[in-house]
Amino acid sequence: MSKMKPFNTLVSRQEALDIILKKVNQIKRKEKICIENARGRILAENITAEFNVPPFDRSAMDGYAVKAEDTFGASTFVSKKLKLIGFQHAGENWTGKIEKGECVQVATGSPVPDGSDSVVMVEYTKMEGQTVEILKPVYPKANISPEGEDLKKGDSVLSSGEILSPAKIGVLAALNIQQVSVLEKPKVGIYSTGSEIKPLGEALNPGQIYDVNSYTLASVISSMGCTPIRHNIVGDEREIIKAALEQASKYDLGVFSGGSSVGVRDLFADVIASMGKIYFHGVQVKPGKPTLFGEVNGSPIFGMPGYPTSCLSNSYIFLAPALKKIAGLPRLPPKQVNAKMSQRFVSSSGREQFLTVKIEKGMVIPVFKKSGDITSMANADGYIILPVNLDVIEEGEEVTVTLLN
Amino acid sequence: MSKMKPFNTLVSRQEALDIILKKVNQIKRKEKICIENARGRILAENITAEFNVPPFDRSAMDGYAVKAEDTFGASTFVSKKLKLIGFQHAGENWTGKIEKGECVQVATGSPVPDGSDSVVMVEYTKMEGQTVEILKPVYPKANISPEGEDLKKGDSVLSSGEILSPAKIGVLAALNIQQVSVLEKPKVGIYSTGSEIKPLGEALNPGQIYDVNSYTLASVISSMGCTPIRHNIVGDEREIIKAALEQASKYDLGVFSGGSSVGVRDLFADVIASMGKIYFHGVQVKPGKPTLFGEVNGSPIFGMPGYPTSCLSNSYIFLAPALKKIAGLPRLPPKQVNAKMSQRFVSSSGREQFLTVKIEKGMVIPVFKKSGDITSMANADGYIILPVNLDVIEEGEEVTVTLLN
Repeated sequence: MSKMKPFNTLVSRQEALDIILKKVNQIKRKEKICIENARGRILAENITAEFNVPPFDRSAMDGYAVKAEDTFGASTFVSKKLKLIGFQHAGENWTGKIEKGECVQVATGSPVPDGSDSVVMVEYTKMEGQTVEILKPVYPKANISPEGEDLKKGDSVLSSGEILSPAKIGVLAALNIQQVSVLEKPKVGIYSTGSEIKPLGEALNPGQIYDVNSYTLASVISSMGCTPIRHNIVGDEREIIKAALEQASKYDLGVFSGGSSVGVRDLFADVIASMGKIYFHGVQVKPGKPTLFGEVNGSPIFGMPGYPTSCLSNSYIFLAPALKKIAGLPRLPPKQVNAKMSQRFVSSSGREQFLTVKIEKGMVIPVFKKSGDITSMANADGYIILPVNLDVIEEGEEVTVTLLN
Repeated sequence: MSKMKPFNTLVSRQEALDIILKKVNQIKRKEKICIENARGRILAENITAEFNVPPFDRSAMDGYAVKAEDTFGASTFVSKKLKLIGFQHAGENWTGKIEKGECVQVATGSPVPDGSDSVVMVEYTKMEGQTVEILKPVYPKANISPEGEDLKKGDSVLSSGEILSPAKIGVLAALNIQQVSVLEKPKVGIYSTGSEIKPLGEALNPGQIYDVNSYTLASVISSMGCTPIRHNIVGDEREIIKAALEQASKYDLGVFSGGSSVGVRDLFADVIASMGKIYFHGVQVKPGKPTLFGEVNGSPIFGMPGYPTSCLSNSYIFLAPALKKIAGLPRLPPKQVNAKMSQRFVSSSGREQFLTVKIEKGMVIPVFKKSGDITSMANADGYIILPVNLDVIEEGEEVTVTLLN
């Protein structure tokens, strides 16, 4: 006979998160990739400068390399005249030496010629033939970037664990590093379960719906620096679920949706318990109560609710922090804004409630329909989390909205 | 003879931005892609629901489908007993009809059997053999999601121009849409210019440095939803620059770095003026004055400063807004935080200043070294923009930091 089995103890959102973050570990596998493709990746080696950058004293300005003392006392009214003895443009190597009373034209980035100790900006000069008039004095070292100012040979410049930003990729380029060791992107297996779920492209029979969760999950997973691998839909049979879990345990993480509720066909929890461990089953959040977290063959496995909005909201609340930890991404606070409720909202679920909202003209408007409705999320700018013991938010009350994307 | 040519009139940051945004246009080319790869892409068609989702009245709970009136008056103490006449699990199609006094077991997501108008949650029932005791009454329509509740046939569900979020991809999946029309990613050609610039992997001659800008620019460009195409370094010769500009004009945007300053070798402005138009040359920002914006063969061309930090900071200030507009991305306000200066800072550049900073223990610490130093950016959490007329920020004064990445 088919008995349904209500949830036993539910864990709170915070307990669930704590368990998840304790059980998942940062990926250890590394790979070498070109710096061109390294934006957003996690550095997996320490980088030391092997030479000075710049590799020579260079001019920070377009102008004239001089001996500073030759310019002292110069002004627009009483210029100092210097003899122009050469041109040193960026990329060239003028090999002479500047003596007292002489100057060399230099461009931004050019090496500073021997004998000079400073550069006068072109704006404060006049050139006529072989003579350059200096209209403003400079200090010794003025407008020169000394060798090694940017990166000094032997300096630790980047550390394992840093996210490669455009500027950090610039540091690697400056040091002639074309390939860099980064953490591999964690591989995450995705499985939609349930015989009512149909793959896209096939015709629906009565009682069937299309697979939504494997697509929304794949999107969230790729946005968290992981590689999603979508699999065929898993039927409601013990052996099929078992085989899928066996396969999922080969990934860094396996994510199932559906089958973790209390219906007679919801075998998922039974099967995972028989193969590995369940850390929790049932979370005190609404929507998304039927969420499971466990492991098979030492690999973490999520059982997400089958309903599209519950699945997606819990993927933001529970799955995303796990993915970030595995991928080595820092756990930054989410982007939030405060705004006022446009209407009274009554809640009495006895669970923390994840309420999707839109922000229009600075006011917060609930857009949640039902947990089965993907439009509850698709039309939302973000969500508010209502505490367990909160029954009513009044119109005009300020709430904190966590922005999606 | 080699004359340097100082900048004439500088445009302000705001003027430069206004010109850029007036001159660049959103890409028109579209492509069909799989929804699996569509996260973050810009929808280029309107989507209408071609069928109802859900396609049938479905149970929102695990429980028993009933006639609501059969449950009226039920309580924990005085239950109502109904005859269990069948099982309707998700994905199945029980074809009978419920009569007065009867019920059918249903799972979340199952179709609601004919004859029933509501579902009693399993938690408020007891099943013994063929009898189900109902412990709490339900209203008609309770715990049922009617056909089309999520998406109604004929409804406009997504519009051209929307960014495809995980939830919106879920909407497409729910509607059995596997391929979707999106804006193409704009192609952006990148060219580092200057004979002092060496490609990575080659040995440096005296006076040479490695190409940093093509890598930092490529990272910024890909982060803005565009495809960067890096090219060989362009030498300081008129014909070579001309050929590169000709090639660059085939892209949706061309970005050059270096060569746009006032040095004798800085031919870039001359060449672009001879081939197309210059909209501005020289911006009142520090660092990054030698920035140029123009067009060749109707395609927008940026000339960025050669110095790595100037190039990168101006790519955040000027290039990124242009890329977003071309790619069709919304111009969201950047992520900013307010914090107090850890030290006095004196500035008197007569230009708006882009000052890179770190935030440590809630205090803002300037990390800017020189505009040639990529570490000025690599070590920064963000930047503050100091107005033209500001000379001093006092220790403890609050400033607004725009966060990088």
